[in-house]
Amino acid sequence: MKPNFSLRLKVFNLNCWDIPYLSKHRADRMKRLGDFLNLESFDLALLEEVWSEQDFQYLRQKLSLTYPDAHYFRSGIIGSGLCVFSRHPIQEIIQHVYTLNGYPYMVYHGDWFCGKAVGLLVLHLNGLVLNAYVTHLHAEYSRQKDIYRAQRVAQAWELAQFIHHTSKSADVVLLCGDLNMHPRDLGCCLLREWTGLRDAYVETQDFQGSEDGCTMVPRNCYVSQQDLGPFPLGIRIDYVLYKAVSGFCIYCKTLKTTTGCDPQNGTPLSDHEALMATLYVKHSPPQEDACPAHGPPQRSALTSVLREAWTELGLGVAQARWWASFTGYVIVLGLFLLVLLCVLAAGEGAREVAILLWTPSVGLVLGAGAVYIFHMQEAKGLHQAQAELQHALRRERETQDLDAEPHRAPLDAASEQS
Amino acid sequence: MKPNFSLRLKVFNLNCWDIPYLSKHRADRMKRLGDFLNLESFDLALLEEVWSEQDFQYLRQKLSLTYPDAHYFRSGIIGSGLCVFSRHPIQEIIQHVYTLNGYPYMVYHGDWFCGKAVGLLVLHLNGLVLNAYVTHLHAEYSRQKDIYRAQRVAQAWELAQFIHHTSKSADVVLLCGDLNMHPRDLGCCLLREWTGLRDAYVETQDFQGSEDGCTMVPRNCYVSQQDLGPFPLGIRIDYVLYKAVSGFCIYCKTLKTTTGCDPQNGTPLSDHEALMATLYVKHSPPQEDACPAHGPPQRSALTSVLREAWTELGLGVAQARWWASFTGYVIVLGLFLLVLLCVLAAGEGAREVAILLWTPSVGLVLGAGAVYIFHMQEAKGLHQAQAELQHALRRERETQDLDAEPHRAPLDAASEQS
Repeated sequence: MKPNFSLRLKVFNLNCWDIPYLSKHRADRMKRLGDFLNLESFDLALLEEVWSEQDFQYLRQKLSLTYPDAHYFRSGIIGSGLCVFSRHPIQEIIQHVYTLNGYPYMVYHGDWFCGKAVGLLVLHLNGLVLNAYVTHLHAEYSRQKDIYRAQRVAQAWELAQFIHHTSKSADVVLLCGDLNMHPRDLGCCLLREWTGLRDAYVETQDFQGSEDGCTMVPRNCYVSQQDLGPFPLGIRIDYVLYKAVSGFCIYCKTLKTTTGCDPQNGTPLSDHEALMATLYVKHSPPQEDACPAHGPPQRSALTSVLREAWTELGLGVAQARWWASFTGYVIVLGLFLLVLLCVLAAGEGAREVAILLWTPSVGLVLGAGAVYIFHMQEAKGLHQAQAELQHALRRERETQDLDAEPHRAPLDAASEQS
Repeated sequence: MKPNFSLRLKVFNLNCWDIPYLSKHRADRMKRLGDFLNLESFDLALLEEVWSEQDFQYLRQKLSLTYPDAHYFRSGIIGSGLCVFSRHPIQEIIQHVYTLNGYPYMVYHGDWFCGKAVGLLVLHLNGLVLNAYVTHLHAEYSRQKDIYRAQRVAQAWELAQFIHHTSKSADVVLLCGDLNMHPRDLGCCLLREWTGLRDAYVETQDFQGSEDGCTMVPRNCYVSQQDLGPFPLGIRIDYVLYKAVSGFCIYCKTLKTTTGCDPQNGTPLSDHEALMATLYVKHSPPQEDACPAHGPPQRSALTSVLREAWTELGLGVAQARWWASFTGYVIVLGLFLLVLLCVLAAGEGAREVAILLWTPSVGLVLGAGAVYIFHMQEAKGLHQAQAELQHALRRERETQDLDAEPHRAPLDAASEQS
């Protein structure tokens, strides 16, 4: 690789709102999205909410000349909705499905059925290894009473851990997607602090697009007031995040978003705004290291966010266990009721009433059983994430102690590994 | 690190058969396991089927002086059953739960409720990075009619992919666990070929233990003939696998197994046999590289096993879709039956019969609905693994083509990355 090596990376991200039977003007929007992607010729186009495999196949065919490589990530019952189109050969692919992703009995929310996931693509670009991640986290249906908050923090932690462990030999890391979290939300801070990823909107020298970089804006005709909740001016929940490891630096030259209308003819491509980033990767002399080791202020921020996430997950575990206990009692009550109905049905007095009540009672036991199972699973999943956070916190504290006592460090480190 | 650097790694692996209410002599076996681990002082003890968190806590306390660090992996409803005790500080921890792991309606098999997973521990030993994985795959209940075969191959692929992507910066990789696969089974070959991991039993210079290295033997009083199926002399389904990356070499000096009885006093520690490996890691001059790049014979073996796995998963997808279609028809039939029962109940002639049949009909629709959902999920999961295999096959073929035409390779590679 030449010392004056420079790589330009044009990236496109969009939550496509491509839900069969539910989304408006699907076919037309997909067609115009394909035209736009062909016209602009990005290096990578990362899409979410493509919940129709037929639409993916349509795009694949339409984009085959400009983006010869593509992948559709399949999971859950409907599919993760994630897909990617690449101008460069994709070297490797892996998918990680989040352990927790809502509840199946919340049918009208539907997240459980999608099997939300993170997809990783490894690309080799002029000898540089790029790990590109695309993801979509659990939706936030109510800002005030968010029953999925702990699960989303756990997903953010799982995402951060997956990136951390799979990108150790990558030169550049890129994460695009709909995180369903505002920039200052706990999960978002946890993700940034643990991985060292930087936010293109915050870092770019040249931003053009919607006010405050919002990716759901009231001007978009597909966005309702309910979608924006207590933020009538818009919310920023879709991101382009990136980092380079030692030896390289990366910066975002330009970041553009659509502004509630199609770049070509005035009607939006989706209910979310598209993100278009132009990134540059260069060799970095040691003093300009793009990803410096955590200094004391960063370490303190990391410790603080790890602790906050640990507390949040602890509350989630308690809540999940409460639901499991509650449904446990309901199951016992339902079984008792069933025995009572059997006794009544054996007699003559209330036989018909007993038989009529049999179905709802069986339903009560089975329903409570299902809710019990899914909250037990939730408690285990949250507890695992909490234990990993606790371990990370302990290691952070030990590193801080070693940093604080530099003369003691080598001896400690040696005895630690004896 | 010194040029004559040498690291000894003593590893213990056991499927503990620690199932509350079901396993015999649990408390006694756990006590003796703790005593044995304290006595032998391994570097790492990796355990499976510890399905009682209380027993883990008991062991943690008992082993706290010899193994100061420990972790219990939580997932599913019961827990993954995986845990680890380490003589060295565990630097990092991550868990990956397998996307597919049986069906919840197969309650008597129970795998779905465990949330089978792979756990990764990163250890730093004298400056060397060790990635240690512990796992337990779906059980094989019938060798002749194995309905979980495709799922187990998908799990083996997911495990191989997880190891491949998370160990790129590790110096040494170690995998221990109950794979529920015989050494020549498709999933086992896929795992070894894709990751380059080598089997301690095959590689060791000094083996002491059960015949053919079997880890379930008829001599063990907890093993029934049914467990062994068509292999009355024993089966080998638990493994210690390892590899070192370029710059290091690793070899297994000794491998021991228990032989159906406790090493101390004659009664077995579990229904599985324990594996005890002594590994040595050394610096490797380039010509002795422990993990050479795939040559033509290895590449051919890899391509062959990738193709076979792709075919197996294709059959699994077809089977899962058949079940989804079948249950789809049953749902329609059940709904039709419910309408009919409503009509009958509205009349006078067969009112009581109609009411009596209402509960089983609702059960039929709900049951078929659940089976439909889980087979749709299975089809998606298997299809994703199949797509990843197809991608890997394509990349392998391209590499082989480049190897076959060495003069064309640099030009192609350059144009590929233009």
